Amino acid sequence: MAAFRIGLLGHGTVGSAFEQLLTERASDVERLTGRAPEIVGVLTRSRGEFDDILDRSELIVELIGGVDAAHDYVRRALEAGRHVVTANKQLLSRHGEELWSLAREGGVALGFEAAVAGVVPVVRVLRESLAGARIERIHGIVNGTTNFILSEMTRSGCDYQEALAQAQRLGFAEADPVDDVGGADAAAKMAILARLAFGVPVHIDDVRYEGITAITSDDIAFAHELGLSLKLIGTAERLPEGISVRVHPTFLYGGHPLASVSGAFNAVTVESDAITEITMSGPGAGGSQTASAVLGDVVAAITGARALAPALEPLPIVEDVMSAFYLHLEVDDRPGVLAQIAQLLGDAGASIKSVVQRGLGERAQLMMVTHPLAHSRLEIALAAIARLEHVRSPPRAISVIDEEFV
Amino acid sequence: MAAFRIGLLGHGTVGSAFEQLLTERASDVERLTGRAPEIVGVLTRSRGEFDDILDRSELIVELIGGVDAAHDYVRRALEAGRHVVTANKQLLSRHGEELWSLAREGGVALGFEAAVAGVVPVVRVLRESLAGARIERIHGIVNGTTNFILSEMTRSGCDYQEALAQAQRLGFAEADPVDDVGGADAAAKMAILARLAFGVPVHIDDVRYEGITAITSDDIAFAHELGLSLKLIGTAERLPEGISVRVHPTFLYGGHPLASVSGAFNAVTVESDAITEITMSGPGAGGSQTASAVLGDVVAAITGARALAPALEPLPIVEDVMSAFYLHLEVDDRPGVLAQIAQLLGDAGASIKSVVQRGLGERAQLMMVTHPLAHSRLEIALAAIARLEHVRSPPRAISVIDEEFV
Repeated sequence: MAAFRIGLLGHGTVGSAFEQLLTERASDVERLTGRAPEIVGVLTRSRGEFDDILDRSELIVELIGGVDAAHDYVRRALEAGRHVVTANKQLLSRHGEELWSLAREGGVALGFEAAVAGVVPVVRVLRESLAGARIERIHGIVNGTTNFILSEMTRSGCDYQEALAQAQRLGFAEADPVDDVGGADAAAKMAILARLAFGVPVHIDDVRYEGITAITSDDIAFAHELGLSLKLIGTAERLPEGISVRVHPTFLYGGHPLASVSGAFNAVTVESDAITEITMSGPGAGGSQTASAVLGDVVAAITGARALAPALEPLPIVEDVMSAFYLHLEVDDRPGVLAQIAQLLGDAGASIKSVVQRGLGERAQLMMVTHPLAHSRLEIALAAIARLEHVRSPPRAISVIDEEFV
Repeated sequence: MAAFRIGLLGHGTVGSAFEQLLTERASDVERLTGRAPEIVGVLTRSRGEFDDILDRSELIVELIGGVDAAHDYVRRALEAGRHVVTANKQLLSRHGEELWSLAREGGVALGFEAAVAGVVPVVRVLRESLAGARIERIHGIVNGTTNFILSEMTRSGCDYQEALAQAQRLGFAEADPVDDVGGADAAAKMAILARLAFGVPVHIDDVRYEGITAITSDDIAFAHELGLSLKLIGTAERLPEGISVRVHPTFLYGGHPLASVSGAFNAVTVESDAITEITMSGPGAGGSQTASAVLGDVVAAITGARALAPALEPLPIVEDVMSAFYLHLEVDDRPGVLAQIAQLLGDAGASIKSVVQRGLGERAQLMMVTHPLAHSRLEIALAAIARLEHVRSPPRAISVIDEEFV
């Protein structure tokens, strides 16, 4: 049968890895699908012309990144009845519903496995394997750069800037790392996963996110004494009042399936009553991993992947979620200070699960973990604590996934 | 649109869990696929008639287990142009090629996600997501019963019989556990995974397997001192001379992704140059997990799942594979014994990576881990060691997955 004609937009790290992998795997793909894939045109800043490539292609692979130009190309390709495979999480977290709808109307595939968690096949698993389960919650480490940095801070005790520099030296962080370390990259991925898990539209603007730039090596070291490890965790969960999708630094107890995921790895845990929970992990998106995920979507398109079902009515976004918290306070080392703090926490409904106090001459450090309470109530308690005479600096609070709570 | 008509064969734990889940999820499935699934007939020993159910069904769910009757029903269903979903690993590890071929010729789906690793979607991931990768090796904990028993022996120090009794009390082992503890269940699953990973026919008779019934609490306790944990590991790997598919007790170093998988869980690690490795884990097959996997396959059949590609020419089965080994010896505590043993190992090409010696009065126990060598060469060394004057009982050897080797 004739070759399956692919137009490739973008020829950076991932684009060239994809071209190489396609060449290596073309005969295997032909055996699996009956058609050998072939790249018939490449668009870069300096060569190629989109309309010409579109004319000659059955499928467009979009790897140029960014939002506006990619949006234009992908929309035009779908409108022209072409399959599309993209690794562009920002595009899908902003314009996903429009593009999925175009693909559905045109009867073509829109593959995006490579947009989330590199080669960890969480998109296909959510779309297909778990179609028979009502998903209640997803926790994910979906950004390899930040996981590498936090692992490095944990391993060596170095501070954030040193770990970032190390990540940049090893190629795990870009020269301008703001999308990764600020949490925007993870937020876009969680918007996509939440859309798949719950079947409702989720825009990146619905995702509250916070990065890792304010994390100190002290936070990590102290929490370690309480048996906690720090990750940048994305959460998507159903709540009685709606859904919550968020990304922020989070402490995990050692028993959590994500606690042992170190280095530039991604991992996702999916929870549902029927399945209890499954965890998938693997390397974050390097060039060859992303290329492999893109090729998997190409194979699915050749063999007839199905469209994503239309979204249900949107659910309310819940802002004030429940969580356990790690608190870090610097106080004067005097009798009664801990009692005052415990009283204020108790007044807000926060009960204390564990506490470590360390004397430092006239001052002391208090690290504690609370049982779950609403974020708004914690804020009230923290404001009151900050006003205490013997509290030396504003208390720091970081969410904790309490395994007994989950 | 009209309901999607399902005939259900078998109504035990999984069958009734499937019926319940289908009822709960029918409207969600209708939204995803356009058709609401409905059970139009149930076959058990005491009710229903197969031909009548077949006439009225578009898809047959086979959950009766066993080989011969299930083979007959599944073959007749496929020949009659019906989709089939089955959780029957023994059936597929014996008659898979015939049945996949019938499904291909009939243009119908033959879903079997539930046959391997419960709800961990390793079948779909191998068939679809990793179609773009050349898979080199799979390691799996694919039997929850044995993993529970080994975890319990590790946790409490109890012996095999006690741990088995505990597993039976908690419902993790059947009254007659021989298929699980003897390794046949895991072997059937590994045959299926190897077929998917390498695209060649793999029959259960091609799988060398050994269960956990001879494992002692001493093996576990001693190896723990060397940083090793014991699992029943299934391995499928490409080798220069062919493939090897095998199941046997195996020690893992702490850093291996499967080392931390405890209790009645399943987990599979897939390795390929393009993806490095991905790991998927989740609960083994309880009724609701298996039911969820079956329903996922039903959804895929409604929306048009594709057939498995024909198998390539068979590859030779390699018997004499390389592995690192844990050795346990009881010797007289005399000068020169360790040197004699090390000499015999060295003569066979085995170099020693680590060793622990423990005196017990006049006797001593030697536990050591070798670097990788061919199994046949180890056998030669063990035979020579067993003939030494001061070795008190035949040496015990258990494979080790050496992370530096992998």
